[in-house]
This record gives sequence, C-alpha cells and structure tokens, in this order.
Amino acid sequence: MYDLWYWPGIPGRGEFVRLALEAGGIAYRDRGCDEGAEALMEDMRSARVQPPFAPPYLVAGNETIAQTANILLFLADRHPRLAPADRRYWVHQLQLTIMDATLEAHETHHPVGAGLYYEDQKPEAARRAKEFREERIPKFLLYFERALAHNGAWLTGETWSYADLSLFQLVEGLRFAFPRRMAMVERDCPKLLALRDAVAALPELASYLASDRRQPFSEGLFRHYPELDG
Amino acid sequence: MYDLWYWPGIPGRGEFVRLALEAGGIAYRDRGCDEGAEALMEDMRSARVQPPFAPPYLVAGNETIAQTANILLFLADRHPRLAPADRRYWVHQLQLTIMDATLEAHETHHPVGAGLYYEDQKPEAARRAKEFREERIPKFLLYFERALAHNGAWLTGETWSYADLSLFQLVEGLRFAFPRRMAMVERDCPKLLALRDAVAALPELASYLASDRRQPFSEGLFRHYPELDG
Repeated sequence: MYDLWYWPGIPGRGEFVRLALEAGGIAYRDRGCDEGAEALMEDMRSARVQPPFAPPYLVAGNETIAQTANILLFLADRHPRLAPADRRYWVHQLQLTIMDATLEAHETHHPVGAGLYYEDQKPEAARRAKEFREERIPKFLLYFERALAHNGAWLTGETWSYADLSLFQLVEGLRFAFPRRMAMVERDCPKLLALRDAVAALPELASYLASDRRQPFSEGLFRHYPELDG
Repeated sequence: MYDLWYWPGIPGRGEFVRLALEAGGIAYRDRGCDEGAEALMEDMRSARVQPPFAPPYLVAGNETIAQTANILLFLADRHPRLAPADRRYWVHQLQLTIMDATLEAHETHHPVGAGLYYEDQKPEAARRAKEFREERIPKFLLYFERALAHNGAWLTGETWSYADLSLFQLVEGLRFAFPRRMAMVERDCPKLLALRDAVAALPELASYLASDRRQPFSEGLFRHYPELDG
C-alpha cells in the first residue's frame, strides 16, 4: 500500500502519478485529498532522511520518493506493467519532456514568479504565452508525434506505459488552457490524438475517469485565460 | 566509449554530465565541443527510434539517451561508482531538484521566453529575479543543507555521487550569476559550502577542472547581470 501526498483540489503534478496507480491497478491512499492541505503541510515538516523538496511524494514503507518523474520511475521498477524494462530510459526521457512542457504551460500564467497572482503579471503573461502557443506547443507536440511515428500506436509500441498516460494528461491540460490554439495544432498530430483517445478509453481507467476522484482542471498548472489563447 | 552531444561554448546542461563522466573516469567523446554546433544540429536531424527533444544527449552503441537527469541515471546504472544502487531514487530526486533550480536561474533572465534576447525582457527579468534571489535561492539551498544534515558530508553519506557533482555546479553557477546574494545566503549553508569545496578538491576532477575543457560561465543558463543580483 502506497501513500500519495499532493495538494488537494487540483489535478496538478499528482495526477500523473494517480493515472499510473489507477491504470496499473495499484493500491494507494490519496492522503492529501483525503486529509487536506494542513495534514500535507504537517507531514512535509516531519523529519526524514530523504526529505521531499515539494509535493507530490510517495511513501512506501520506510521510503519517501519525491519528484513526479522519479515517483513514476520507482513505481515502474516495482510494477513492470507500467513500463517495459528494456525501454525504461526512453519512457523516463519522455516523462521528463512531458514535465518540461507542463512547467512551461504553468509559466505562461506565472512568468514573473509563482509567489504573485496572475492578475499582478498579466502583461508579462501575455508575452510569454505568445511564444508558448506559437512556438513551444507545436514543438513539443510534433516531437511526440514523431516519437509515435517511430514506435507505433503507443510510445513504446505495443501497449501503454506511464508516459502514454502522462501524455494524455498533457493533451487534456493544453486543451483546457489553450482550446483555440490546440484546435489548430492538433490537425498536425493525428497519432498523438489517437493515443489521447486510446488512453481515455482504457478499461483500466474507466471507473477512475468517471469518478469524482478525477479532479477537473481549474487553478493549477493548466489554467484557461482566454486572453492567453491568442 | 560514449558520445556526448551538447552545444559548444557554454557549460550549460552538458556540464552536469561531463562532471560525472570525468569524476567517474569514464571514456567519452565530447562531440558537440569537438565538432561544433552545425554537426550537433545535423546529428539531431538524423532519424532515431528514440529521438532526443533537445541536447544534451548521450549515444551509447545503438542507444540514444536524452534529458540530463536521465543520462546520469543511465550512467549510474552502468557505472556503480556514480551512485550507490540502494540510494538511486534519492540521488535521482536530488538531481531533478538541482535541474529545477537551474531552470529557475535561467528563467530570471528569460522570463518571457527563450526566443527573445535578455535586452527585450529586462523589466520582466527584474521582477522575476527578485523572487528568485529572495525566496527561491534560500529555499533551494536550505533544502540541500537539510538533506546534508540528515545524510553526512555527502548527499548519500560516505562518498560523492553524481548529485554531489551537480550540486557543486549549481553553487558555482549561482555564485557567478548572483554573487552578492550568494554571499548572504551562504552564511546559512556551511555543509553545502563544505560539499562544494570537497568536490572542487576531488583528485578525480583535478586535471579536468584545470584544463580548458572546463568551460567558463558566460551566456548560458547562469548569467551575470548585476542589476538582477539586487
């Protein structure tokens, strides 16, 4: 049994871990969601030999594992269904690139710093979002399209890995935040969209995606400000 | 024999890999430095089943491994001197946090986007740098100080791992970019400074650090603009 700790109320980085746990049929407690932000902050303060810098982190017995991509690597090493062992660096490389794209999506509404409100950095956000939607979204998505062209319907070929689940989440987040731009870019990414649809239709995820544990996008990494969608 | 590909002329993200290869006594060719940016861009265009999104990447036989932290993970799995196997997720977690801090240092001079010059985003940079030097530098460095307090002179206790080498590089980069701020913050980080000095004095790194292959900071991730140092 694993304990996942992440901020409640937003999908955020925790959602990449949740999708892997759910699709892999792996038992876990969603401690941050169940017990709230105060409990998370208190747990963060507890002394640990391997302290996390920030949520999400996973507690497995005596071990605490932090950094989203590192948690997925750890889980895949223990649960081979999550990634083929002979492609583990490839899957991890893709995951790290998905995390980069996710962070850049966040930077569009907080270019001056996470400590300020969006309302206090709107001109800067407008400039940053322009480059992101015109240059970076196409660059990232066409990269994943190319990776699929070399590998098959999934990023490792025959079946899903945790990176496919995370790529689904990235597409969902970008669609939420930049619906107009995504409608344009998606025309050039048929394989990526097929992957997105295939993840959405996975039997392993059906009950989770239909449940209220699947949190909607709102004020987290991916935010919809129409003025940033160009 | 490994081939490392990275942009020539700046230490950048490639330097985290170089330090591990050098300290580990691992043979490699520094292809980007030896052959230039044109050769790197041409190599990037070659068809690969596992294409890199961006440099650095490492070619090992038929395999291409990209993403800085992933390259280090891959190398440590093959060369046990680089990280103790029973602490591999901890070392990787630290490395990913070092990469986060490095990216945030870059964002201070390019908050609006990497596609524009610093001169075209100076007001935005001034705002971003304020939060970075006042909030983020102390938060990151005190985190590593706390990690050392729980583990010993090195991040895994008895001897250096690749994360210690990278942490040295982060401190060097921050000292170059934010010398005034670092002089203040360092007073609260004696263990981190002892680690920095211990890496600088490693016999395994002596000839590399004294050579002209050790490139100085200039216009890369870490840049010194006095007005951003507050």
